[in-house]
Amino acid sequence: MHRRFMSLIMPRMEKIRMIAEILTTGDEIRTGGVRDTNSSYIAELLQDAGTIVARHNCIGDDINDIAAILKEISKRADIVIVTGGLGPTEDDLTAEAAAKAANVKLVLNITAHKRIEEFLKQRGKKIITSLNAKQALLPENSIIINNFTGTASGFILKINKAVFFFLPGVPFEMKRMMPQVMEYIQKELNAFCLFNKTINIKTFGIPETPANEALKDFRKKFKNIKLGFRAVFPEIHVKLYGSGDNKEKIERELKKGEQFVIEKIGKYVFSTDGKSIEEAIGEILIKKKACLSVAESCTGGLIASRLTDVAGSSKYFLFSGVTYSNDSKITVLKVSPKTIDRYGAISVETVKEMADGAKRISGADYSIAVSGIAGPAGGTEEKSVGTVCIGIADLKTVTGKRYNFPFKERIMNKEIFAAAALWLLLKRIKDED
Amino acid sequence: MHRRFMSLIMPRMEKIRMIAEILTTGDEIRTGGVRDTNSSYIAELLQDAGTIVARHNCIGDDINDIAAILKEISKRADIVIVTGGLGPTEDDLTAEAAAKAANVKLVLNITAHKRIEEFLKQRGKKIITSLNAKQALLPENSIIINNFTGTASGFILKINKAVFFFLPGVPFEMKRMMPQVMEYIQKELNAFCLFNKTINIKTFGIPETPANEALKDFRKKFKNIKLGFRAVFPEIHVKLYGSGDNKEKIERELKKGEQFVIEKIGKYVFSTDGKSIEEAIGEILIKKKACLSVAESCTGGLIASRLTDVAGSSKYFLFSGVTYSNDSKITVLKVSPKTIDRYGAISVETVKEMADGAKRISGADYSIAVSGIAGPAGGTEEKSVGTVCIGIADLKTVTGKRYNFPFKERIMNKEIFAAAALWLLLKRIKDED
Repeated sequence: MHRRFMSLIMPRMEKIRMIAEILTTGDEIRTGGVRDTNSSYIAELLQDAGTIVARHNCIGDDINDIAAILKEISKRADIVIVTGGLGPTEDDLTAEAAAKAANVKLVLNITAHKRIEEFLKQRGKKIITSLNAKQALLPENSIIINNFTGTASGFILKINKAVFFFLPGVPFEMKRMMPQVMEYIQKELNAFCLFNKTINIKTFGIPETPANEALKDFRKKFKNIKLGFRAVFPEIHVKLYGSGDNKEKIERELKKGEQFVIEKIGKYVFSTDGKSIEEAIGEILIKKKACLSVAESCTGGLIASRLTDVAGSSKYFLFSGVTYSNDSKITVLKVSPKTIDRYGAISVETVKEMADGAKRISGADYSIAVSGIAGPAGGTEEKSVGTVCIGIADLKTVTGKRYNFPFKERIMNKEIFAAAALWLLLKRIKDED
Repeated sequence: MHRRFMSLIMPRMEKIRMIAEILTTGDEIRTGGVRDTNSSYIAELLQDAGTIVARHNCIGDDINDIAAILKEISKRADIVIVTGGLGPTEDDLTAEAAAKAANVKLVLNITAHKRIEEFLKQRGKKIITSLNAKQALLPENSIIINNFTGTASGFILKINKAVFFFLPGVPFEMKRMMPQVMEYIQKELNAFCLFNKTINIKTFGIPETPANEALKDFRKKFKNIKLGFRAVFPEIHVKLYGSGDNKEKIERELKKGEQFVIEKIGKYVFSTDGKSIEEAIGEILIKKKACLSVAESCTGGLIASRLTDVAGSSKYFLFSGVTYSNDSKITVLKVSPKTIDRYGAISVETVKEMADGAKRISGADYSIAVSGIAGPAGGTEEKSVGTVCIGIADLKTVTGKRYNFPFKERIMNKEIFAAAALWLLLKRIKDED
C-alpha cells in the first residue's frame, strides 16, 4: 500500500516544501448551519509536518461544483485533504465527483467492500445494504484509508499533480483516520521537509498598535522568524512563526525572539505557552496551596465562570458573590451601607469592602472584587460607561483601583473588566513568588 | 453613500439569486492556530438574505496571494465578504491587496481618517500615529463601512463583476459591522430578488434526530419552505426558509409552518423570534415586576453571567451565590451541614436548600440552584460526570430535579447544566401566566 503511494508522489523530489490545501464539503457548512472544525485541526497537523497550507476551501454537495473545485486545486497543490460526502445517502457524492475530476471510472473496491462487511458484521449486521454497498464504489486506482469507526471508506487518489486524501466529514471519524494520512505524508516529506514551530505570547493591557511599535525592530533582528499579531479581545497575542531545515537553529532563534518580546513588552505578557490568565492563576495558587474567592457586580459571574472553566479549579476556587443589587452587597458581603451611600456602589472604597467581605466569609487567602458600569445605560457625567473599580485582598492588604475603558458595549465591558481583574490578581500573586 | 453603492451593483438586474462567497484571511487561521468562526456566522446571514453562498475561502497574509484570490473570486461571485488584514500592523495587507486586485491606487480616505481621529480622540489620544493613519489608506473609489468598536475601517469595493465588503477579522468588530453590510445587500436584493424570510424556532431538550423525526412530514406539507436544523450546543434551532416572489404567500406559509412545528415539538420551544432563554426570562420577570436570584455550584457563575448579558437585567436580577465549596454553601446560602452529609452536595435535597437560601437572603421572588459534576474528574459509580441537580424556588414552593447528561467534557456540561436550569425557570414563570 505504501509502495503504491510512493509511486503516486514520486514525480516530485526537489528539496522544496509541499503545498497543501484543505477542502471541506457539505451544504450544512456552506450555508453556515454547521461550523467547520475540521479545517483548523487538519491545517495544524499539515503545518507541523512541514507542508505549507496555502488555502482552505469549502463547497456544497453539488457533484459538478465538487468536481470543478477538485480540478482547480489539483493544479495548485501537491497534497489535498478533502472531508465530507462519503456517507451512504444520495447527497454524498464526493467519490463520484473525484472520479469525474480524475477522469476515471467509479468501480467496486474489493478491499473497501470487505472492510464494510467486516465492520457491519462486528455490529451484528449480516447483510450489507445497497446504501452501504455504495460506500465501496471508489474511483479507479484509489488506495483505501482505513476507517475504524464508520462505514465510509477514506481513499487516496492522484488528480493531475496533486495527491488527494478523501476522508469522512464526521470529526471523530476524520480524526481517527488522520494519523494514517500524516504517516504517508511524513514518510514522503521527511526527506525534504522543513521544521516548523510557533510561539504564542499572550498579553493584556497593551493595544495592538503600541505593541507593534514596541516590536518594530523585530523583523530586522530576526530574519527567519515571522512576527504576527492577533487580537483576541481583550487580549493581544504576539505570534512568532519559525520555519527552516535546521531544527536547533530555529528553536534558538525563537528563544531569542521570545526574549526580545519579553524585554520590550514583558510587563503585559501573562503567558508564553498558550495558557489563559485563569490557567496561569490556577497553577500558582496550587503551588502556594492558596484559595481564592471573588465578589462581582457588573461582571455578573463571568470572572467565576472563567476561573471554573479550568479543570481542577475546585482545588483553589471557593466562592463568588455575584452581588448585583446593593442590598446583596450589604447582606452577603457585609459592605457597609455608609460606604455605598458616601462613595457609591462603583467606588474604590466599595470594592475594597467587597473584596474583604468575600475573603472573610469564605476563608480564602485571596479575593478580587469588581464593580463598574458595563452599559449600555447607567453612565453618568462623572462615571461613564466603561468605568470599573477593582479591589484585591491578599494575606496582608486590601487595595483598590479605578479604571476607565473606552468601550460602550455591555458584553465587551464585561469581558475587559473580568480580564483586567484576573490580570491584576495574576500579577499580585506572581510578584510574591 | 447608499446611492454610490447602488451604482456599484447596478450592472446586475435580472431576477435571479446572487452568488456570494466568503474569504477569510490570516496566517493564524490558515495554519490552524485559530479556528475560523466568522465564515459560518456570515454564511448564515447571507443565506437568510436570499443569496446563494457558493464557497468559503481562506488564505494567509501574503499580499500577492490575497490579490490573486480576490481576482479569482471577482470572476465567480456577485457579492463577497472578506474578513481580516485591516489592522494597523505590517502584516495587515488586505487594503493594499484589494487595490492591487482592483488595479487602483491606495489613497488616503478622508472619511476614514476623520473617523479614526474621532475614535482615538474619544479615547483621549490627541495624535494619530502613522500605524493608525495607515488604516485610512484605502483603495480608490471605495466606500466606508463604519466600525464603531475599532480603528480598522471596513470598505466596499467593486472588482470585476463582484462587490466586495472588506471587514476586520476580529469577530466582535465584524459582527457589529455586518448589519450595515446586510442592509446594503438587502436593499439591492429586494429590488430584483425573491422575497426571503427565515423563521428561527429555538428549542432546548430535544436532540436533532428525534426533532427531525417529529417533523418528517414537514417537507411534504410545505413545498415552498426549506426546513433546516442547526445545532447550537446545547440548543437545536429549527429554521424555516421562505423564498419566492409573493411576499404575502410566503409569510402565510411560514406562519402555517411555524404552527406545524409548535404542534409537533412545542414543549421544547423557548422562542420563535430569535430571543435567547435569558432574554425570554427577563421579559416575563419585568412584566411580573418579579426579582430573581441564583445559587450555582458546578456552573461556576455561568448562569448569572448569561442572565447579566441582557441589558437592563439589573431590573430583576439581584444575586448569585457561586458556592463552589461546601463551606460556602453552608455559610452563605445557609444549607444545613446535615443535608450535605446525608445526601451529598449533588442532591435534590441540597439544591432545594440552596435555592431557598439564595431566595431568602436576597429577598427575591424566584431562584434557581444548580449542583452537579461537570468533569472531567469527580464522577462516581452512582453519580457520574454529567449528573446535575436543579432546584427552583418560587412564591409558593421549592422543587428539585435530578438529570443525567451524557457528556464527559467540562465546558459542555457547564453549558448544558446552565441551559437546563434557565429553561426550567422559563417554563415555571411562563406556566403561571
